[in-house]
Amino acid sequence: MFSNKFTKYYSNILDKIPKNVKIIEVGPRDGLQNEKNIIPLYKKLELIERLEKDGLKHIEVGSFVNPKLVPQMADSYQLVSHLKYKPITYSVLVPNLKGFEQGFFQNSVVTHDGKIPIDEIVLFTAASETFNKKNTNASIEESFKRFELVASEALKKRIDIRGSISCCLGCPYEGSVKTDKIIEIIQRYADIGAQYIDIADTIGVGTPKQIHEILEKATRHFSIDRLTGHFHDTSNTALDLVDACLEHGMSIFHSSVGGLGGCPFSPKRAGNLSTEKLVEHLDKRDIYTGINLNTLKGTSYWIREVLKK
Amino acid sequence: MFSNKFTKYYSNILDKIPKNVKIIEVGPRDGLQNEKNIIPLYKKLELIERLEKDGLKHIEVGSFVNPKLVPQMADSYQLVSHLKYKPITYSVLVPNLKGFEQGFFQNSVVTHDGKIPIDEIVLFTAASETFNKKNTNASIEESFKRFELVASEALKKRIDIRGSISCCLGCPYEGSVKTDKIIEIIQRYADIGAQYIDIADTIGVGTPKQIHEILEKATRHFSIDRLTGHFHDTSNTALDLVDACLEHGMSIFHSSVGGLGGCPFSPKRAGNLSTEKLVEHLDKRDIYTGINLNTLKGTSYWIREVLKK
Repeated sequence: MFSNKFTKYYSNILDKIPKNVKIIEVGPRDGLQNEKNIIPLYKKLELIERLEKDGLKHIEVGSFVNPKLVPQMADSYQLVSHLKYKPITYSVLVPNLKGFEQGFFQNSVVTHDGKIPIDEIVLFTAASETFNKKNTNASIEESFKRFELVASEALKKRIDIRGSISCCLGCPYEGSVKTDKIIEIIQRYADIGAQYIDIADTIGVGTPKQIHEILEKATRHFSIDRLTGHFHDTSNTALDLVDACLEHGMSIFHSSVGGLGGCPFSPKRAGNLSTEKLVEHLDKRDIYTGINLNTLKGTSYWIREVLKK
Repeated sequence: MFSNKFTKYYSNILDKIPKNVKIIEVGPRDGLQNEKNIIPLYKKLELIERLEKDGLKHIEVGSFVNPKLVPQMADSYQLVSHLKYKPITYSVLVPNLKGFEQGFFQNSVVTHDGKIPIDEIVLFTAASETFNKKNTNASIEESFKRFELVASEALKKRIDIRGSISCCLGCPYEGSVKTDKIIEIIQRYADIGAQYIDIADTIGVGTPKQIHEILEKATRHFSIDRLTGHFHDTSNTALDLVDACLEHGMSIFHSSVGGLGGCPFSPKRAGNLSTEKLVEHLDKRDIYTGINLNTLKGTSYWIREVLKK
């Protein structure tokens, strides 16, 4: 017979495992942004349309960054004006107030009421100072100064805010990252009004143990429903991390159709966790995603052909 | 409500998690063998005695190898003659027939009926040819030629055989290791009469995903009760691997009191998983080990003092 303590320990975990998972599809943004080949706007729009037909309900579609720095995302300003209002959550990455204003007011062809159908903006910092400096040319402190300006504008316009924390499980420059640093950044995002916060393993070096440590601490202050998991599959470990998160009740994960995105630190290895792999993993456990794995595989094949991968 | 498939998937796992775990304490052998300081025989005997008082029922006590190559184990031949017949399983590592004969007949002070209280010998090969060549100066094929001779002698004398496979989850020279290679080696060990086979992560690079792959395949042919887990904690991931094994019903794990053993490839990092850490982890889940964590911590403190760690 199982002892009470044994049963309690394991059934506590079982009780937390979610029955539904929402996948945030990051292929059109995080995926294409890290691909060498730039594809035309109409192909991007076709990709988004296909993903919606496959059952994705939340798609990161672009990035309002400097087109000179990230040419793959230069057409994000045009792209968003082509999107229709639908029961789909569209997100864009926004680095600062300039990006916000250009994206939402100047460069985009806005609808008659001055809106574009973007539901959520994504702010981003790293958990490591060195990575953040190299990636955004700002300290974490400076990043949050920028975020405050963007966040208050977004809140006024009822646009949701998601805060992304890259390198939570390790940094290519600094190595390990302190759990307390991550909790501190989650708190700062929450303070400026972010509804959701992404825990990202940007270089695919994390272990389940680290996930347990972070989520145990984080859920003392924040609901697990506000935390999302973004794991690169560089070392083929992303699903181990997903499993660890499921045990804490996390129910929002990011992935990229076809595993688009590569890994900037080791080009031949996998980058983003592929959406097919994630859906297959969850299907096996009968955790509902609403995604049609068969048609999704078709979309994956199609976009990889387009990119000549 | 949980769906049937969901409940089935997760309760299948829950059903497999063992209620009891046996720990094979490898401190006196794998631990001390990799420590720079050589401790006197009477201290080794005291260590074994303390471990028994702490509740350990299976102890790897030494190695019948060439004393010139492994001076830390030179006194294994004397050590075994001091052990009493007890309801404790004592194991020794045996590299070849010469070691077997020297250990069991020549160098040891044997009891009146020509026996020493060793219950089990451990044969060892790596899953990687390069590692095996460097470690034992033999190909895997050659190792098994040696093993056959030792195994048939051991079986005649009713001594149990355990076959160890190092580098199952990665090799410092060859990188990744094919699952099929591991299955093949398990089969070869089984063929020569090994009751137990150790799946070892010698350099602490493995992931739960790899464990799932290996155990899923291996348990098609072998009972999980015959497989044991030996995980180095170099990257602080050993307990993640233990958890993955528990999900398959594995119930025998190796560890080393005080984490003795270091890591020969990165001296400043952890080597063997410490027995205290493992017992604490299992206690938390109410998986019974029969070990007294409090007194074990005393033993850990004591041996680290002896080694001046």
